[in-house]
Amino acid sequence: MLSTTTTLKPALTPLRWEARTLFLLDQTQLPLSTVWHSYTTVEGVVEAIQTMVVRGAPAIGLAAAYGMVLAFQQVINTETQWALVLEALKPLATELNASRPTAVNLMWAVQQQWQLLQQAALQELPLEQALKALEANAVTLHQQDVEANQRMGALGASLLPAHARLLTHCNAGALATGGYGTALGVIRAAYATGKCSHVFADETRPRLQGAQLTAYELMYEGIPSTLICDNMAASLMQQGRIDAILVGADRIAANGDAANKIGTYSLAVVAHYHQVPFYVVAPASTFDGELPTGTGIPIEERSTQEVTVVNQQRLAPEGMNVYNPGFDVTPAHLITAIITPDVILKAPYAAGISAWLGNRAEGLAVTTV
Amino acid sequence: MLSTTTTLKPALTPLRWEARTLFLLDQTQLPLSTVWHSYTTVEGVVEAIQTMVVRGAPAIGLAAAYGMVLAFQQVINTETQWALVLEALKPLATELNASRPTAVNLMWAVQQQWQLLQQAALQELPLEQALKALEANAVTLHQQDVEANQRMGALGASLLPAHARLLTHCNAGALATGGYGTALGVIRAAYATGKCSHVFADETRPRLQGAQLTAYELMYEGIPSTLICDNMAASLMQQGRIDAILVGADRIAANGDAANKIGTYSLAVVAHYHQVPFYVVAPASTFDGELPTGTGIPIEERSTQEVTVVNQQRLAPEGMNVYNPGFDVTPAHLITAIITPDVILKAPYAAGISAWLGNRAEGLAVTTV
Repeated sequence: MLSTTTTLKPALTPLRWEARTLFLLDQTQLPLSTVWHSYTTVEGVVEAIQTMVVRGAPAIGLAAAYGMVLAFQQVINTETQWALVLEALKPLATELNASRPTAVNLMWAVQQQWQLLQQAALQELPLEQALKALEANAVTLHQQDVEANQRMGALGASLLPAHARLLTHCNAGALATGGYGTALGVIRAAYATGKCSHVFADETRPRLQGAQLTAYELMYEGIPSTLICDNMAASLMQQGRIDAILVGADRIAANGDAANKIGTYSLAVVAHYHQVPFYVVAPASTFDGELPTGTGIPIEERSTQEVTVVNQQRLAPEGMNVYNPGFDVTPAHLITAIITPDVILKAPYAAGISAWLGNRAEGLAVTTV
Repeated sequence: MLSTTTTLKPALTPLRWEARTLFLLDQTQLPLSTVWHSYTTVEGVVEAIQTMVVRGAPAIGLAAAYGMVLAFQQVINTETQWALVLEALKPLATELNASRPTAVNLMWAVQQQWQLLQQAALQELPLEQALKALEANAVTLHQQDVEANQRMGALGASLLPAHARLLTHCNAGALATGGYGTALGVIRAAYATGKCSHVFADETRPRLQGAQLTAYELMYEGIPSTLICDNMAASLMQQGRIDAILVGADRIAANGDAANKIGTYSLAVVAHYHQVPFYVVAPASTFDGELPTGTGIPIEERSTQEVTVVNQQRLAPEGMNVYNPGFDVTPAHLITAIITPDVILKAPYAAGISAWLGNRAEGLAVTTV
């Protein structure tokens, strides 16, 4: 045989932290251009989240964790007393917290960082030392996210039959997380172990994260895959060509109801009808234990232009009324299992979620306080 | 009150026949531009059907009926004997017949015209007289289509509750027919009689007939309406905001299985889950009594570019594999009723379809032989 050269591609990641600067891969320009922007202010990070330069619930959470470092750094340039620092920081943290409404990982990350600072204030830690702790915590959250994804990948792959033909919606990949991905992490792990023969990617209207990001990731990894329009998934299931569906989540309520990209609910109903297993893959930061059911999850309504205009090209008549919810809620009873980094949760979800989050909270208390 | 001027808009139509020339409204350019093309050869009509200048099963059928007139006119320019005329006509008719595979109205129209010519040949009718008969038959089919749509509109509207909130997929409107529309004809009739308060239009990926054509028609008629992405319909049904779904069809088998635009099957499954009535609206020319079930309906696979490129703008990475079926088949058991010009068919469909088509064939024999 001829000798071959294997080029090891660098792992895909949507964000990097270097020299107290946050670098974000501009996901609105993929797959045609690979452009990185740098951010040294929290205001910049807020705008990047709102304009979807960074998107995907876990990646938004990590950007916010770094955003809190930038905010604190900005504030201690002018304020030197802890009480005044926290007072000045509060509106910045509030704005960051509200930059998008549905993904709870954002609020989770802001809260993690805020709690660390409150603790540091109580201890009257020097401000520069607190900044280092805040930065170290963001880096840790980032590393933990990637590790959690790898654990979810292995756990999720264990559920799949050999040579499974999988379908995913939106992008729950490396680009939506700290790296590796949630739903697409399971697909990566399954492909690496021979458990996945083909992936169908929903294009995911209106923002086309499937066509632009998931297709990019699948081609990057060399995983055999096919892009479809969202409305074709049912026909594939009717033809018996899908063995399992894997999606991420933006917020999971205490009873297992899961908010995710618009179109996920439709897919879950159709999967239920065809008895195709429907898996949600999500780390702890996606769970909102305070919310009893999914009906309490706020659903972001986005600009009508996302539907009527694609790449500056107008599709629908001027003045046409548009409904553009960014997310929908899949009730727990349509979910076959929720794959987490530690455990595979199955119905009835409430008890399993509560026990798992309880155990984690105890564990976390040891490592972060 | 101030006096107001009411401007009566002309009825929308996708095709006109004047001075033995077929005029087609270029539906690939709507809603941004209103461009009419003229055709004097059957080759031109074949291309117009293939490139979707004219689309919608009944409109394709009518374009083909006129296309047969153009073909016959071309042939009798050079051939003067009936046997040679039919021999020269056959490949043109065959090409026209094969210009798109799924909509049976096309084959139905070509066959109607071919049978008329065979009869004329048997009677040794002068060729110019046969041309007139062929032309008159195309015009009659066109008029009958509009009248059938109006009857379907009235019948369909009778099924709806007051102030119904309706949802439709693709474009089954005036632009898809000789005028007035099938599914959108029912919506027109329902709105005119106070039975429809709002219409949701699926944008209908990949060709966006909902965003470009149905939105245009609904705005043209002033019917209160909202455009959504296909994957949002399930969320609306979950919220209890849809009272009934109306779609057209491209071919209905003897058992009631119905092929229609890709995404229709998905909608039918989701409607079934939410117990939302799902109606198919179609004239006799859409029924294929020869086909026992929908599994025999050929499904057109169209270019990958329809999915990856919108208005010359590339969306997905170069080289990404794409699956792009133009249609799917909804099994009869998911259809609440099939609305025809003469009768509302309900399960079990086979007997009702057979009886209705049988009665029509007898009636038609009187009027067309």
